[in-house]
Amino acid sequence: MAIVALAGGVGAGKFLRGLVRAVPAHDVTVVVNTGDDRRFHGLHVSPDLDSVTYWLAGRADRDRGWGREGETFRATEELRAFGAADSWFGLGDLDLATHLHRTSLLDRGVPLSEATSHVAARFGIDARILPMTDDLVETRVEVAGQEGEPLDLHFQEYWVQRGAADQVKEVRFAGALAARPGPGVLEAIAAAGAVLICPSNPIASIDPILAVPGIREAVAARRDRVAGVSPIVGGAPLRGMADRLLPAAGVEVSAAGVAEHYAGLLGGWVIDHRDARLAGRVEGMGLRVAVTDTIMVDDAAAEALARVALRAALGR
Amino acid sequence: MAIVALAGGVGAGKFLRGLVRAVPAHDVTVVVNTGDDRRFHGLHVSPDLDSVTYWLAGRADRDRGWGREGETFRATEELRAFGAADSWFGLGDLDLATHLHRTSLLDRGVPLSEATSHVAARFGIDARILPMTDDLVETRVEVAGQEGEPLDLHFQEYWVQRGAADQVKEVRFAGALAARPGPGVLEAIAAAGAVLICPSNPIASIDPILAVPGIREAVAARRDRVAGVSPIVGGAPLRGMADRLLPAAGVEVSAAGVAEHYAGLLGGWVIDHRDARLAGRVEGMGLRVAVTDTIMVDDAAAEALARVALRAALGR
Repeated sequence: MAIVALAGGVGAGKFLRGLVRAVPAHDVTVVVNTGDDRRFHGLHVSPDLDSVTYWLAGRADRDRGWGREGETFRATEELRAFGAADSWFGLGDLDLATHLHRTSLLDRGVPLSEATSHVAARFGIDARILPMTDDLVETRVEVAGQEGEPLDLHFQEYWVQRGAADQVKEVRFAGALAARPGPGVLEAIAAAGAVLICPSNPIASIDPILAVPGIREAVAARRDRVAGVSPIVGGAPLRGMADRLLPAAGVEVSAAGVAEHYAGLLGGWVIDHRDARLAGRVEGMGLRVAVTDTIMVDDAAAEALARVALRAALGR
Repeated sequence: MAIVALAGGVGAGKFLRGLVRAVPAHDVTVVVNTGDDRRFHGLHVSPDLDSVTYWLAGRADRDRGWGREGETFRATEELRAFGAADSWFGLGDLDLATHLHRTSLLDRGVPLSEATSHVAARFGIDARILPMTDDLVETRVEVAGQEGEPLDLHFQEYWVQRGAADQVKEVRFAGALAARPGPGVLEAIAAAGAVLICPSNPIASIDPILAVPGIREAVAARRDRVAGVSPIVGGAPLRGMADRLLPAAGVEVSAAGVAEHYAGLLGGWVIDHRDARLAGRVEGMGLRVAVTDTIMVDDAAAEALARVALRAALGR
């Protein structure tokens, strides 16, 4: 059975490692956020594509969460010694090869989707990894700066450079209206036996995917086969700083709040034991609710979670 | 006294370390070959500029001769795993930072000469390092391939990728006729108390500099204050594969042959003790000849050689 997963960074990476244990990897198509992409030192960096790739390849750094295991940062340290403008963003030496290779391909006119296939092939990944679009979509965060002045930041500037310390007024996806879904994305969603929304940051990782015209509608059309896993457990994100973005989007920071945010898209919703008290509220939205352990301490835990999510998607 | 040195790679690097011990570093202007420059993985790599910089900074790898000491090659190994087209050229992880920084500057419209100043400043270099030109000049090597078919190669393809194994038919400097000398180059030569030609590959390192319109004439005009150090000792280059290029240019592979090649430019010529028998022949060309130890085993030896070269330039 073909399965599509909408994915962002670390949470998705862990979940997908479980998913490809639960089902054959070649049945899985991962549609990945590219709204975080940015050029650093002239190199096209795709943080979520790379997170998904490295996690699926078993090469991710499980402790740090991002980047590759056994990574070093010698080039980045040197760039800092140069005072290079972009050196606040740490690029590992192994990771740099991915960015160099991808950028060379892109600058020769190869689309991002094809470059992504090259990278996935080098890591021997059987799942299909698709960028949400080959076009440029940029997640912009409007914040109130320290003096209250409005600042319009690239997501990475907000998130990494400034440590998500600014008060967020608005998140928008520049370029989304003109973007086309990546090759194969709509077809994969239409043909999928189940569509899963990974436990990723709803605002920064999933919403940009849904903002590409056609994708939200395609998912909604399969609503009865769609399930998501809450990235919020006990009122806080498991990882990251999603709680700083949800309120700005008018979303309650809870497993139920995120389900509401995905209204119209979900058939099933998976929440953690710690949020069991919210099950009734989510059922009241007309969703199938599964309550389970959503903390992916290892691949076996992720596999169990993936199986629960699949059952929630299929209604059995 | 202002001194100008025309420089290529390793031999120049060693010599310049001695020169800035013999005279104040801020009196020295180094005019460097850029004909070997090439984009690798989209990055602008300037091998000779970097060699000169790293040597002057005391950061060069003395054993390997090129690149930085304490270097690692993790990104390049990864690029090889990707099968990236340019991965035959080894770029160190520390070295990558230089290329990333320079390329970012160039792609923003900063001229190479200014980018070079940035890099030199980061390494705290007091000498002035000038690229021979801010324009694109490319050293092309026409060879007979294995089947005898003519191949037109970038110098790095000939030198590094194919290991200088092909029979060379012609070396030319594409773009040289339209190139302008880098900012300050002609002025530095005109104002110099002495002009030194480093013991670099005459064909691959010095000739491209002289091919930029105006530079050869500027050096020739100062002929009486010009001295060079032979890169050939005992009929073979000390390092590198200059002997494979000299014959293609019709130059005898000897300390005297290279002096003849520089005819019209030199006032003095420094040769090794091992070539003392050639002193008379070089004097017969009307040159002041100095016979000394030209093997730069350390900075002290390089300093002694630089002092001899300066005396040969000044005629005392």
